Amino acid sequence: MSKRPLILVTNDDGITAPGIRTLISVMNTIGDVVVVAPDSPQSAMGHAITINSTLHIEKVVIDGKQTEYSCSGTPADCVKIAVNEILDRRPDICVSGINHGSNSSINVIYSGTMSAALEAGIEGIPAIGFSLLDFNWNANFEHTKSFIKTITNEVLENGLPDGVVLNVNLPNLEKKAIKGIKICRQAKANWKEEFDKRTNPMGRDYYWLTGKFVNMDQGEDTDEWALENGYVSVVPVHFDLTAHHTIQKLNTWKLNG
Amino acid sequence: MSKRPLILVTNDDGITAPGIRTLISVMNTIGDVVVVAPDSPQSAMGHAITINSTLHIEKVVIDGKQTEYSCSGTPADCVKIAVNEILDRRPDICVSGINHGSNSSINVIYSGTMSAALEAGIEGIPAIGFSLLDFNWNANFEHTKSFIKTITNEVLENGLPDGVVLNVNLPNLEKKAIKGIKICRQAKANWKEEFDKRTNPMGRDYYWLTGKFVNMDQGEDTDEWALENGYVSVVPVHFDLTAHHTIQKLNTWKLNG
Repeated sequence: MSKRPLILVTNDDGITAPGIRTLISVMNTIGDVVVVAPDSPQSAMGHAITINSTLHIEKVVIDGKQTEYSCSGTPADCVKIAVNEILDRRPDICVSGINHGSNSSINVIYSGTMSAALEAGIEGIPAIGFSLLDFNWNANFEHTKSFIKTITNEVLENGLPDGVVLNVNLPNLEKKAIKGIKICRQAKANWKEEFDKRTNPMGRDYYWLTGKFVNMDQGEDTDEWALENGYVSVVPVHFDLTAHHTIQKLNTWKLNG
Repeated sequence: MSKRPLILVTNDDGITAPGIRTLISVMNTIGDVVVVAPDSPQSAMGHAITINSTLHIEKVVIDGKQTEYSCSGTPADCVKIAVNEILDRRPDICVSGINHGSNSSINVIYSGTMSAALEAGIEGIPAIGFSLLDFNWNANFEHTKSFIKTITNEVLENGLPDGVVLNVNLPNLEKKAIKGIKICRQAKANWKEEFDKRTNPMGRDYYWLTGKFVNMDQGEDTDEWALENGYVSVVPVHFDLTAHHTIQKLNTWKLNG
């Protein structure tokens, strides 16, 4: 690229989260950065958008190094309002994260981080979601920087196939312990929920959703395998949810009398 | 089936919406119904789940014909708490809807109705989301009943392929004008957003998200084509978001130095 790319940065942990501040610092070495991110944590928001209430945006100064807006909406709202209302031109790429915690395998579907990347993809903008396998607010993101830079530069160089965005997860290991970057498929895994039932001071029951992650997939081409074996996982994800391989079979059903 | 199936019913418009009341009335002709649905509208919630606050459930009596619980959470929460906390045994099927408004093509990704069906699919339960192309609260659902019954009975009879749920959309036409039921793929379409900017009485700007639906897909095998041509559309959708067809290409990238 001859001129510096325009990079839209967002996340789901909120604009002040250490993860997005790290991502911004990497993107400042690659292009011109505009940040439009939620004004409060939006984890596990899936692909929620705000249609029954209003949205606010606020120009904010955090470290003064790039243009930043905080937004009252979801991660998907942030991308929509950035592209359609805030930015003068279409961004060359949208990066989301770095999420504090994994978005591998089935987590992709609950992830606010990935919903922002998917929303950019729907808008036709190359997009990547980055997540670190450490949900602590004070996680160490230092070792993620070179991998993020490599992957972002490859996307800027090659583009992405139409309708595809990248789901990148980084293991919580020292840099020298990371073996490399692996293209993967989403593992078949899910959460075995456990509801923690409690009683409030007024005597009313309430629940906390908790659960255990269960990986049923023994394949060595999955994101879970890559992460367990010291690799950065990259899964190309798309928003055509059609299970094309099942259409033939469903066409044998007696649906029309 | 020898005994009556156990049917979990949920939605995203809230437990009192006419759409879910119609769906319940159809399901009562097929099996034993338990309703666990949001206590307030949850449209466009995508696949949000509640992890940073608590959940309440309340046993409620609306028409007295089946067991019903209202839940403070999202549609996906309703399915999780129904399966793991409320029901004594796994439901034979989960149906979600009838949504007031379309969930065809790209709308599937924003849809609370479909997130409930997908969540049931993740739990290994056959599931269907139903939507009517009329967003009015007082929409006429009468003509949808026989189609819903046919599709539900076929799923109970045949099961669904592993990891697949059905996204069913019904045109807003008189019953005799509907040509039949068609298995389709998700059309390539999206929303061209328009933000309606206003100023509140305190002088602060705010936005309403609005937009125009744009169908870029001229295929005659899509849900949009089916609906425009008087068919009920049935799209098999899955939650493996991997764009498998792009893995080969991404493996040609220089990601590892």
